[in-house]
Amino acid sequence: MMLNDVRMKGFKKRMHFLDVFDVIREHVKCAGSESVSVDDCVSRVTFGDVRAQLDAPPFNKSAVDGYAVLARDTYGASQYNPAKLKIVGECAAGESCGVVMKGEALRIMTGGMVPTGACACVMAEYCEEKDGYVLVYKPVAEALNVCMQGEDVKRGTIAVHKGVRITPYCAGVLASVGCSEVTVFRKPNVAIIVTGSELVESKPKSGQIIDSNSHTLCALVCDCGGEVLSKKRVGDDYESIKGEIVSSDADVIIVTGATSCGKKDYVPLVVDECGELLVHGVAMKPAGPFGVGKVGGKIVFLLPGNPVAACVAFDFFVRFALEVMVGIYDGEKILVKGVLARKVASAVGRTDIFRVKYCNGVVEPVRVGGSGVLSSMIRANAYLVVPENIDGYAKGTEVSVRLF
Amino acid sequence: MMLNDVRMKGFKKRMHFLDVFDVIREHVKCAGSESVSVDDCVSRVTFGDVRAQLDAPPFNKSAVDGYAVLARDTYGASQYNPAKLKIVGECAAGESCGVVMKGEALRIMTGGMVPTGACACVMAEYCEEKDGYVLVYKPVAEALNVCMQGEDVKRGTIAVHKGVRITPYCAGVLASVGCSEVTVFRKPNVAIIVTGSELVESKPKSGQIIDSNSHTLCALVCDCGGEVLSKKRVGDDYESIKGEIVSSDADVIIVTGATSCGKKDYVPLVVDECGELLVHGVAMKPAGPFGVGKVGGKIVFLLPGNPVAACVAFDFFVRFALEVMVGIYDGEKILVKGVLARKVASAVGRTDIFRVKYCNGVVEPVRVGGSGVLSSMIRANAYLVVPENIDGYAKGTEVSVRLF
Repeated sequence: MMLNDVRMKGFKKRMHFLDVFDVIREHVKCAGSESVSVDDCVSRVTFGDVRAQLDAPPFNKSAVDGYAVLARDTYGASQYNPAKLKIVGECAAGESCGVVMKGEALRIMTGGMVPTGACACVMAEYCEEKDGYVLVYKPVAEALNVCMQGEDVKRGTIAVHKGVRITPYCAGVLASVGCSEVTVFRKPNVAIIVTGSELVESKPKSGQIIDSNSHTLCALVCDCGGEVLSKKRVGDDYESIKGEIVSSDADVIIVTGATSCGKKDYVPLVVDECGELLVHGVAMKPAGPFGVGKVGGKIVFLLPGNPVAACVAFDFFVRFALEVMVGIYDGEKILVKGVLARKVASAVGRTDIFRVKYCNGVVEPVRVGGSGVLSSMIRANAYLVVPENIDGYAKGTEVSVRLF
Repeated sequence: MMLNDVRMKGFKKRMHFLDVFDVIREHVKCAGSESVSVDDCVSRVTFGDVRAQLDAPPFNKSAVDGYAVLARDTYGASQYNPAKLKIVGECAAGESCGVVMKGEALRIMTGGMVPTGACACVMAEYCEEKDGYVLVYKPVAEALNVCMQGEDVKRGTIAVHKGVRITPYCAGVLASVGCSEVTVFRKPNVAIIVTGSELVESKPKSGQIIDSNSHTLCALVCDCGGEVLSKKRVGDDYESIKGEIVSSDADVIIVTGATSCGKKDYVPLVVDECGELLVHGVAMKPAGPFGVGKVGGKIVFLLPGNPVAACVAFDFFVRFALEVMVGIYDGEKILVKGVLARKVASAVGRTDIFRVKYCNGVVEPVRVGGSGVLSSMIRANAYLVVPENIDGYAKGTEVSVRLF
C-alpha cells in the first residue's frame, strides 16, 4: 500500500535545512486580499503599493508656537540687536490666515497654516512681544520650523509599499494621507491537529501528558498574522488522523506528533496516501522529524510532537510559509549580531538550532537539560543557527542570531 | 489664576530626559490583577511567580521512536557487533507499560512512558528487528533519549516568574505544568484625548489636517498591553479639554497636542489647575514639549501633537509607565549593538533621539526632511538615543539601539 513507509526503519535520507524553504515557497499559495478600515489594519500586510490620496502635511504648517516671518527679516538678529517686526495677526491651528509682508510677523500656533509671504517660523522662546511688535532675538533660516506641504508624503506617491506589515506608525501615515481603507492580504487560516493518545487537556492519569502544543501553536499562528480556524486533538489512529486532514477547510494544516518513523506515526502515511509527501525528515536538530506535504491542494506541515521541536519547526518553516502567503519573502524576524559568551558544539552534516539569550551585543546559549525542555524557550529570546558545514563556534565568535 | 502659565514665553527650565522616568515610576500605580485562562494569557504579564502544579514531563518519557533498554546492555555495540536484546513488549504513547530487565528491550514510541528497569532509549534508526529480538548497532549512555520526569519543570518550583510577559512558549509551559488559570496584571486602561481644532477624521478642508495620532496611539497602547477605554477629539478650548480630562475613568490619560507654550496650549494649564503638573518640557528632541501630570489620582501624559514627537514620547515615557503598572521595571524593548553607517550630530545639553534602521550589525540613520515626517518611522525599526553630554557619534562607532 505504501511507497514510503519508513516506520521503525528511520529516515532514509534527510533533506538539507535550506532546501526545505524552496519546497515551501514552491507550494504555498497567495492568501488573496481584502479591504479593511485603517482602524483595523495594524499588523496586516499591504496587498499592493498604497498611494497617498492627499499631501501630508496638506499645507505649509508651523512646527512650533511662535511667529511666522520672512527669514531675511531676522538675519543678523541677536540678543543685543533683536529684529523688530510688526504683528499683523494671529493664526491658530485649523484657522485660515492672512498674508505676511516684509517687516511683519504673524503669531502662529503649532499646526497652524503658514501665511502667504512667510517662509519660516521663529520659536516663541526667542521672541518678546512689545506694543504690537515682536522682538526676535535669533535669526531663522528659510523653511526653519515649517513642515512643507507634502514633505512627509506627496499625493500620488507610494505611502506604504506592498508586502509591508503595518505598524502603528504605518497606520498613522495611512490615515494622514487619506487612506481610510487599505487593501491587505487575507489572513491565512490554519487548522491545528494535535495527535497523541497520551495527550489530554487537563488532569493527566498515569502515562498521560497535558497537551501544551495546541496552546503554543495557536498563539504562534496569531503572532505571525494567521487565524486559527480549528484546533483538534486526535488519538494515534490512522483513520482519525486521515479524517481530520482530509476534511479540513483551512489554507494551512498543521499536524503535530506522529510525524517520525514510529510504528504509530501515521501522519506521513496519511499525507502520502491522500496527497503528496514533499519533505519527510530534515538534517537538523531539533525538529529532524519534520515534514511537508500537500493534500487536496492544501499545504500540510508535519511538526514533531516534542514541544521544543514543534516550536522550532513552526518558527522556521510554518512562519516562513505564512509570510510567503502574505507576500513577505525575506522573513520578518530581525537578525542581530552579537558575541558568543560560551562555545557551542554542533554536528557537521546537520543544521543545529540553539536557543540563546541575546542582550546588548552578548549571545548567551541557554543551558538545556534535554531536547524536550520547553522552559528553555522562556529563558531564550533568539535562535542561533549553526549551518551543517560547521561544527560549532568558539566563545567570543561574532554570530548572527534571530530574535523570536 | 495660573502659577505656571508658560504660554508664549517658552519653557523656563527643561527636565533632564532620564529624570522623567523617575517621576513616572514614582507616580504610577499598580494595575491590579485578574485571573485568566491559559488560552487567553498570551501577551499578559504574570502577577506573581507561577508554580508548577505537576512535573513536566509527568514521567520518564521516551524522546524517540525505538527501544527502551538498559544502557549497559548496549555498551560495546557496533555495526559489526550489535547487542541482541529480547523484545518483551511494546509501549505506545498514553499506554501503561511493563518492566524491562537485563537482556531485554521494549518497543517504545515517542512520548511513551519508559518502563521500570530501562534507563535509556535507542533510536529505531540504529536497530533492526529479527525473530523477536532487536539488534542494537550503537551503544547508548544512561538517560539518553529519555526526558526525565520533571526535567523541564519540577512540581512546586517556579514555572514562570512574576512580571514576565507571557509568550506563546510560556503559555505552553504553563499548560504543561497544569496551570489552566493564570493570575496576570489587569490591562491598564487608557483614555486618548486628541486636541486640535485643525484635526478632522477625514476630508480635510483648507487649514485642516487628518488626525493620525489617534490611530497610531490606539495601536501603540494595545501593542504594549494596555486597553483603549476611550478616544476623543476636542478643539483647542480650555473647557472642552478640562471636561475630557476631569471626567475620564481611565487609569492613564494621554492628551496629544496643546502641550507646549502656545497661546492655545491649554493642556498644561488644565492639569495644573485640576491637579499637579509634574513635568513640563524635557531637554530632548523630538518630544521636547512633553509633560506629565496627575489629576484626580490618575496619571496624565501630555504628548506633543507632532506625530513623530507623539510616537517618541509614547515609546519612551508612556510605554514605560504601562510597563511599570504591570510590574515590568527594566523595559521590554531589546537593545542591540551595531555599527553606525553614517555620523549623527547632536546638541550637547539635550537628549537626541534618532530613528534608525538596524540590520544585522549595521545601524543606518534614517534621513529625515523634517521633524514632522512620520513616514520616517516606517523606514526605521529602532531608536538611537544620544545622551545630553554627547554631541553625536562618528561613522563606524559601535552604538546600542532600541528596537521598536
